[in-house]
Amino acid sequence: MGEQVEQLKKHLQRYYDLNAAAALLGWDQQVNMPPGGAAARGEQSATLSALSHELFTAEETARRLEAAEAEVAGMEFDADDASLVRVLRRHYDRATKIPTELVAERAKVTALAFEAWRQARAENNVALFEPHLERVIEVTRRIADALGYEEHPYDALLQNFEPGMRTSQVSRLFNDLKAGLTPLLQAITERGKPIDDSFLGRHYDVGRQWDFTLVILRDMGYDFNRGRQDQAPHPFTTNFGRNDVRLTTRLISDRPQSALFSSVHEGGHALYEQGSPERFERTALSGGATMALHESQSRLWENMIGRSKPFWQHYFPILRAFFPEQLADVRLDDFYRAVNVVRPDFIRTEADEVTYNLHIFIRFELEQALLSGALTAREVPEAWNARYQDYLGITPRDDAEGCLQDVHWSSGLIGYFPTYALGNLIAAQLYRRMKADLPGMEEGFARGEFLPPLQWLREHVHRHGSKFTAPELLARELGEEISAEPLLEYIRARYSEIYEL
Amino acid sequence: MGEQVEQLKKHLQRYYDLNAAAALLGWDQQVNMPPGGAAARGEQSATLSALSHELFTAEETARRLEAAEAEVAGMEFDADDASLVRVLRRHYDRATKIPTELVAERAKVTALAFEAWRQARAENNVALFEPHLERVIEVTRRIADALGYEEHPYDALLQNFEPGMRTSQVSRLFNDLKAGLTPLLQAITERGKPIDDSFLGRHYDVGRQWDFTLVILRDMGYDFNRGRQDQAPHPFTTNFGRNDVRLTTRLISDRPQSALFSSVHEGGHALYEQGSPERFERTALSGGATMALHESQSRLWENMIGRSKPFWQHYFPILRAFFPEQLADVRLDDFYRAVNVVRPDFIRTEADEVTYNLHIFIRFELEQALLSGALTAREVPEAWNARYQDYLGITPRDDAEGCLQDVHWSSGLIGYFPTYALGNLIAAQLYRRMKADLPGMEEGFARGEFLPPLQWLREHVHRHGSKFTAPELLARELGEEISAEPLLEYIRARYSEIYEL
Repeated sequence: MGEQVEQLKKHLQRYYDLNAAAALLGWDQQVNMPPGGAAARGEQSATLSALSHELFTAEETARRLEAAEAEVAGMEFDADDASLVRVLRRHYDRATKIPTELVAERAKVTALAFEAWRQARAENNVALFEPHLERVIEVTRRIADALGYEEHPYDALLQNFEPGMRTSQVSRLFNDLKAGLTPLLQAITERGKPIDDSFLGRHYDVGRQWDFTLVILRDMGYDFNRGRQDQAPHPFTTNFGRNDVRLTTRLISDRPQSALFSSVHEGGHALYEQGSPERFERTALSGGATMALHESQSRLWENMIGRSKPFWQHYFPILRAFFPEQLADVRLDDFYRAVNVVRPDFIRTEADEVTYNLHIFIRFELEQALLSGALTAREVPEAWNARYQDYLGITPRDDAEGCLQDVHWSSGLIGYFPTYALGNLIAAQLYRRMKADLPGMEEGFARGEFLPPLQWLREHVHRHGSKFTAPELLARELGEEISAEPLLEYIRARYSEIYEL
Repeated sequence: MGEQVEQLKKHLQRYYDLNAAAALLGWDQQVNMPPGGAAARGEQSATLSALSHELFTAEETARRLEAAEAEVAGMEFDADDASLVRVLRRHYDRATKIPTELVAERAKVTALAFEAWRQARAENNVALFEPHLERVIEVTRRIADALGYEEHPYDALLQNFEPGMRTSQVSRLFNDLKAGLTPLLQAITERGKPIDDSFLGRHYDVGRQWDFTLVILRDMGYDFNRGRQDQAPHPFTTNFGRNDVRLTTRLISDRPQSALFSSVHEGGHALYEQGSPERFERTALSGGATMALHESQSRLWENMIGRSKPFWQHYFPILRAFFPEQLADVRLDDFYRAVNVVRPDFIRTEADEVTYNLHIFIRFELEQALLSGALTAREVPEAWNARYQDYLGITPRDDAEGCLQDVHWSSGLIGYFPTYALGNLIAAQLYRRMKADLPGMEEGFARGEFLPPLQWLREHVHRHGSKFTAPELLARELGEEISAEPLLEYIRARYSEIYEL
């Protein structure tokens, strides 16, 4: 390794340590913190954000980065040093455009907004959240302005999570997806063989649900020596390095599929982080790359694997051992169909694969309208409900199951939602190739063998850490661009069979 | 408030935020962190310590402190501004004597030592911990040298926790205490009416133990909206401001008194922090003052109140409702005597009031020997066991219940142990005055009334935050110096009655 790159890495270690501490403040706030701690936590988070931003944007970083750039000139694109410098340049240029005060302000605004959202959701009182959402949008707009954009402020935000992607490109992919999903949903609704999933509404002890999620996570290869699972109202995964990767799940007694698929989903994220190379620790190359790549991992485990027939051939007998009474009259095929039921509903995180992306389109459109000023925070509930009626044919009974369901806006994550749908697209692309590379893999699932897909992902995705953007990684590993067709093909095959179309 | 003091406070807010974040890293390490996270956590803690130290010792602090000193000259000793400046001057002078690298090194050494200690204790393998203890002592010695001292390096460390106290003064107080306790212990052993506490060894469901501790904590006035209880192998209390004060307890199924008195003890610490004035937040005056004052709070609740007859007149019927089978054949008086049994044993935190301070004397002596080089880390187990035989007439069966029992050394807390015994002395002094001020208070305990002592402590101790050293506070509120007599008097009275001497 070159001397300049080494110096640059050493200079930035404190920055990554501060970010890890800030991530712990955030995890603790969602998992453990008593309500009284919110105001002080807001100050603490703001201070760590500001210090981290100052460290990163210090003149010394610019100087060392330039020296390192000279050192890696002519190196292979995918060499560690060249990639580190390339990724850092992208981060640095973006970070230096946002003034320190604005970074601190966002941290403070979102810490308070998060508490307000939690209360608003618990009390089903959207008015408590509205002024905070207004402030989040306002500060986000100033961030977008500071970052700069060509077509729409949304581009500036999207780039935060998905470098190399444009709003217009995402719109095209989403239109392709919509064109394929809409007739399928119609066919299922009109002609599909009905599914009875009422047995999932029985009482499933949450302690046993918890234990069952631990069994699956272990089988997936999640390393509990380097992580843990907790409960949180909105499941998420976070990490403080590759050796402390924590996921959360949600336990609902009359909805066992919630904990089940939350754990498998977050487990997919967590495996990605745990698979990041040790040599990338405390550098810009550590951990998962982009949000869409991250989501491709969680969705591949949750849907392609976790909702597949062979997966349940293995796990259904085990699940029945955990819940003998609840599942006494249920056959494997009933269960498999029940966890794949297609039914327009309100909650994105519980949505089936056919309707899921419609939830994303709604948020994608509302965010663009909020940012452009075409929509105010106060108008969100009405706009939200109108779109649910339009896209899914249903209207939320209240705002808690409507516009208050997601944590994202309260945390300042505007421009994040589309990455979920992009992740679905990429998951299908990766899974198609994985299946071709590993004949007999799905038969292996039925025998409880889940390490082959993990190994494949380690080899083709995880080992690169954050080196590549989503388009770069797909070009390199699959020779493909992001496209809607593999996902549509996969969904059509699975649901035509399930619904006997 | 003066302009210069205001500027000084604002300048240091980031410092206190960083310290709060560092405290969370520490709490999480003991309560939640998976073992794999230890190495990275060590780096993160070291970085936060170093940044915090740099912020505090920056030239700007010196400049603003001097300006503030000029501004408060002539103010009353106990005015907020004058006290803040006085306390900060003490902190600043001590902090600037320790080089940043040494601060970071201590953080790193202790993070690794803590993990080694945890493993050594779990596996009862002191050899795993010895090289780490050697490193801790070595770095501590360098810190003592950097701080400077007149008589013994131990003075420099003691001043960290107990400003205004000297090793020689502590030795005298401990000698007074020993002179009174030794004949009492002898009388109890030789002539005391035997106590049967075997029923405490029955199986008490830990979930119910947990629930019972929550009942007591609520009655004590601990605010769960501004705190939480968790489990940890060695109970402790920490806080990230007055509005997020967390305590931990230890659950052992055949030793219910462990969780019980751990929770009441830590609850005493936590009430002190929750009672710190809001206006002191993010300043040097926030939270409890010295370690001995802190320990006076925990011991007053644990012993003077929590082991008293009226306390159990109220709680024993409730405890019996939690454990009807285990306590069916037990009378109030049996229970009261059982939780006050005097029996030389190995574990300091479980020791009775008569023998407790002997545990402290042992550690106080070993620490001085380690620091001076008269004792090496390798010789600790033997020296430890020899002293236990000498002072308490018993020899630990293994190192896990011997020299590995305490977390302190692994965390670099050398010079801390004597504050426990000093806290006992102060607790007795405060309690004697409280009883005189509140006639009928103890009769109130029997009716479940625990807010009067809390109110008294709020008024005479908590509301001062960190303004005063222990000698200053006692002079101001009691007109007394620290002395051994009130504790001896209280112990003699209680145990003469219990053992019918």
